[in-house]
Amino acid sequence: MFDDPERMTIDELDTPSVLIDLDIMEHNITEMQSRCDGLGVAFRPHVKTHKIPEIARMQLDAGAVGIAAQKVTEAEVFAADGIDNILIPYNIVGPRKTARLLDLAIYNRVTVSADSEATVRGLSEATAPKGMPLRVMVELESDQKRAGASVERAITLAQKIEADEHLFFAGLLIYPSMPSIRPLLQEVLTRLDGHGIGVDVVSGGGIGAAMHMAEVPEISEIRVGTYVFNDWRTVADGNAGFADCAMMVRCTVVSKPDEGRVILDGGSKTFSSETLNDLYGYIVEYPDARLYRLNEEHGYVDVSACDARPNVGDIVHVIPVHACVVTNLHNMIFGHREGVVEKEWPVAARGCVW
Amino acid sequence: MFDDPERMTIDELDTPSVLIDLDIMEHNITEMQSRCDGLGVAFRPHVKTHKIPEIARMQLDAGAVGIAAQKVTEAEVFAADGIDNILIPYNIVGPRKTARLLDLAIYNRVTVSADSEATVRGLSEATAPKGMPLRVMVELESDQKRAGASVERAITLAQKIEADEHLFFAGLLIYPSMPSIRPLLQEVLTRLDGHGIGVDVVSGGGIGAAMHMAEVPEISEIRVGTYVFNDWRTVADGNAGFADCAMMVRCTVVSKPDEGRVILDGGSKTFSSETLNDLYGYIVEYPDARLYRLNEEHGYVDVSACDARPNVGDIVHVIPVHACVVTNLHNMIFGHREGVVEKEWPVAARGCVW
Repeated sequence: MFDDPERMTIDELDTPSVLIDLDIMEHNITEMQSRCDGLGVAFRPHVKTHKIPEIARMQLDAGAVGIAAQKVTEAEVFAADGIDNILIPYNIVGPRKTARLLDLAIYNRVTVSADSEATVRGLSEATAPKGMPLRVMVELESDQKRAGASVERAITLAQKIEADEHLFFAGLLIYPSMPSIRPLLQEVLTRLDGHGIGVDVVSGGGIGAAMHMAEVPEISEIRVGTYVFNDWRTVADGNAGFADCAMMVRCTVVSKPDEGRVILDGGSKTFSSETLNDLYGYIVEYPDARLYRLNEEHGYVDVSACDARPNVGDIVHVIPVHACVVTNLHNMIFGHREGVVEKEWPVAARGCVW
Repeated sequence: MFDDPERMTIDELDTPSVLIDLDIMEHNITEMQSRCDGLGVAFRPHVKTHKIPEIARMQLDAGAVGIAAQKVTEAEVFAADGIDNILIPYNIVGPRKTARLLDLAIYNRVTVSADSEATVRGLSEATAPKGMPLRVMVELESDQKRAGASVERAITLAQKIEADEHLFFAGLLIYPSMPSIRPLLQEVLTRLDGHGIGVDVVSGGGIGAAMHMAEVPEISEIRVGTYVFNDWRTVADGNAGFADCAMMVRCTVVSKPDEGRVILDGGSKTFSSETLNDLYGYIVEYPDARLYRLNEEHGYVDVSACDARPNVGDIVHVIPVHACVVTNLHNMIFGHREGVVEKEWPVAARGCVW
């Protein structure tokens, strides 16, 4: 697409384009690994944030124990690239999906989670003809009230997995693993110990949890995705600063209907529709501007509070609300160092919902 | 991917999958064309809803005058398939984009819109060396307060385009063209007439506007996208019924943490984060269920108001809030007739943000 990518600068990119500042990203990778190493917690980056095998390799080279992927097809992309230790923290349900999972698990060290007897039964049935055990963790319910088993159900599931000749009980999993989950975790660990069931791994997750993992010493492994790029939400939550945000979306002002409003060439197809305080992104050059509404290809910006205001043709850079969903919308993202484009990454695992 | 797609049923599809009921879609295409034919309004379907050339051909075969695409790269996909009359209702800004636009306009009948002198100047400069005029409409600002020129600016722009030897004034454009815009439209038409400037085309847009176009007889052409599939929002707005919704997303229940909540295997990567009354979709089998929260791969459903409740492994079908953004998230969508899969469509123009 470009004749000489080595010498291209971000100014030559079409807009909207997703930029990754490589210096910041590399710093983020090193920092999180050091934080985990310092606490003796295994680090397992969640690749959903970038969906790019080369970045996963950088995370592994820095010391990560393996990766987390959210769906079987997402895991397949990384396995095809030779990455071997993959946790899928998800209930894999239905014969089509479990068959695909088992195909992956023959050649790779794959672990999944389960929070119901139905899921465990399906995994067992799919594994039975294969003659090798599948690694299954039990997911505990957190304050977030998403998936996850209650304490009672978790004990039952761990026993069932332990007793199932086709499955291997691989530990406990929870998301997010904020300090508030510690009493619950301790109760489950104590009761499993009473049943003679050892827990090799307790896998926590979430960037907020990673900031507080010293307060939950039961956690032996942590899964975090967003830290690699960071986004407006991680900043707003106090888990990073703007200087730690590696991802920005480069946009052009395409309309200025009046002095108080401009329109960007990025909308919900560029940023997604996730909001923070009812806004869709933070505009670096115009911190007082408000990206207050999106259509698919239009970003509505209220610039009435800005002293200097952009004109049609001007370029702005937007820190998105949520980096992971932005990556998923784009075919390609661009890694640069001080404005010189070094990487044109196809988003290899984009759209992997199966 | 599948051995015999002719005989595959939707039960054999992995989840989450986007299904299109072909009978309903064909009915929608015929109905909208008839509505426009009856009023003598040219119909120009917006292909952003489906992003699939074969569906555009069905719309053209039914009588559409051409298509609308929202970005240059989206238009390229359809032009490459041989579709010739393409309107891009957008300010194409910046030398890289205008160059790409002109490459497209050499071989295709392409029209764009402009709402500023800066956009018009850029289009003129890019067209100058080509020796053929580019068709440019003037976009008027509607009640939506998105892009678009005021009356004064519109008159100035039309005069500038008319006077520019490199450009051809192709008419007026507005979105949405609800009846409330009629006085404004009449004023612009009267004043342009006073300046001796004829207006060949007045292009309106929006599904709501299409329902009311008889009330704005100045509209000579209408652009509508969503009608081809319809979605929960078109139903909620009274522009269609549930029986007109061709698009449903097939999901599996993967978790049932308690009796009041289940988790679907579709989240914001499947549905986008657009909401209607704070919900993310309408579950056909459980009309009293509330899809109240999404993470990327998790759909949280409150089933506490449902008499019968789904279990892990059950299949549900979700009518999404906004069909266009769903198409953009998926690599493939599946056309079926009474459950038998007839079409496996790659979403050819997915992710075309440039």
